[in-house]
Amino acid sequence: MPTYDVLALGNAIVDVISHAPDAFLIRHDLKKDSMALVETERADELYTAMGPTIETSGGSAANTAVAVSALGGKAAFIGKVRDDQMGNVFVHDIRAAGVDFDVPPATHGEPTGRSLIVVTPDAHRTMNTSLGIARSLASNDIDPARVGDARITYCEGYLWDAEHSKAAIRKAMAITNDAGNKVALTLSDGFCVERHREEFCELVTESVDILFANEAEILSLYEVEHFDDAMQRVRKECELAFLTRGASGAVVLMGNEVHVVSADPQGPVIDTTGAGDAFAAGGSGAGALQPVPAS
Amino acid sequence: MPTYDVLALGNAIVDVISHAPDAFLIRHDLKKDSMALVETERADELYTAMGPTIETSGGSAANTAVAVSALGGKAAFIGKVRDDQMGNVFVHDIRAAGVDFDVPPATHGEPTGRSLIVVTPDAHRTMNTSLGIARSLASNDIDPARVGDARITYCEGYLWDAEHSKAAIRKAMAITNDAGNKVALTLSDGFCVERHREEFCELVTESVDILFANEAEILSLYEVEHFDDAMQRVRKECELAFLTRGASGAVVLMGNEVHVVSADPQGPVIDTTGAGDAFAAGGSGAGALQPVPAS
Repeated sequence: MPTYDVLALGNAIVDVISHAPDAFLIRHDLKKDSMALVETERADELYTAMGPTIETSGGSAANTAVAVSALGGKAAFIGKVRDDQMGNVFVHDIRAAGVDFDVPPATHGEPTGRSLIVVTPDAHRTMNTSLGIARSLASNDIDPARVGDARITYCEGYLWDAEHSKAAIRKAMAITNDAGNKVALTLSDGFCVERHREEFCELVTESVDILFANEAEILSLYEVEHFDDAMQRVRKECELAFLTRGASGAVVLMGNEVHVVSADPQGPVIDTTGAGDAFAAGGSGAGALQPVPAS
Repeated sequence: MPTYDVLALGNAIVDVISHAPDAFLIRHDLKKDSMALVETERADELYTAMGPTIETSGGSAANTAVAVSALGGKAAFIGKVRDDQMGNVFVHDIRAAGVDFDVPPATHGEPTGRSLIVVTPDAHRTMNTSLGIARSLASNDIDPARVGDARITYCEGYLWDAEHSKAAIRKAMAITNDAGNKVALTLSDGFCVERHREEFCELVTESVDILFANEAEILSLYEVEHFDDAMQRVRKECELAFLTRGASGAVVLMGNEVHVVSADPQGPVIDTTGAGDAFAAGGSGAGALQPVPAS
């Protein structure tokens, strides 16, 4: 039996969150709901313009690992931080959440990655990420023994944004496939899908057992207009797929099985940061517990 | 007319906040509601034991300056940070809140101060502060022109915990007294009063125009058992005093005027971190607007 339900691979990021009206997005040319990669100068300009913030550990796959742990599963994380104050914050928080994390912090190079997040009054979040040292995650950070010891290796699409981390994730996927364990992928962001559509399509067909995507991402992946068209396509290409649709709920596809699940609001929505990541933790848990039909 | 309603002097601190049951306080020998000064080793031990945290700029007097600004007043702050990531967070947040802050960050020495805060389910907060570079606030960080340009110079009692910053605060109080402006002091914490009772008593009689204290602090200052005894004493020694009593409200004393104000709960209390600091902002605003009777 593998030790871990889920091993998550992703960018190690500290979130820097403030609330602002929609006018802030317009003034600074930010696309609502998206994740934009920003260089240091642009990040500094946005940070200066933002109101007071709170800092809290984030990163898409890291959030999922924390949520797996909170749901009672056993999770580990692989990602890269610097040995700086924000790196210490990240290491503390993920370990305090019960997630195993032992990639050594880099002792030189760029600072720990951060994401400047603007939450608008409609609870939507718009992210501007300065990857920093996270983009230096390398193949030798992937411990084959640990990868082989997880039922699911969960990878975030964002890792495709850096050459180094792309090599690392490909290594992890190969080890997982060879061990007969499951590879999960989240498409991360519509713009991320646009940047890497061809590779993502190939991955979904060849290496990925469990796919997570929201509506915008799956439409972009297959360049179709209607959700149902994307849904019919992904059913043929992926063993298990979780497609989220915000307030409209989610669709789960597993071979001939199709489940349409309504959203179940628990009160006013304040901030959707990390909501999809937490959803994926539930999906990964279901994926880990349930035998996936042979393809 | 002075430019600033309030110039606040205090320790520049980043808060590191987590929620925990009361058992956590017992296990780690923490006195609920207090602020304990901790050295690096103890801070590291507590931080490791704490659950996932959020980081947010704090510091008692800094919180008050931010709240003065939020209430529409013009505020400035004097305190010391390092040129590290947490120092950048502090500088960003206080300026983003509209508070003028231009003490140059230290380029060497200890890191920016942090306070490990445990919030228990009853909404009380227990603080463990590692002052770091904050304790190096020095007399030459006090710009006489700025101090002379504020109607109220608001000082936190915590500054008495370091020799350097004590000298700085005394300089600021002398400039304020000489300029005929008002000196405000918060007693900060019951244990802080125990550490500096004699000096605080002397200050209240000789230099302070406006005093802020909670019930535990004012009882400790005068070493009396009953609130009314402390109240009668402070009326004679201080022109304007604001005494807070938690859920029981507050008492305001100004010469012959006495006001007893009830608390006005606005919903469930989640976290009292900074509540007294915000209260002091309202009091300072009232103090700045209202002529204080000649003593």
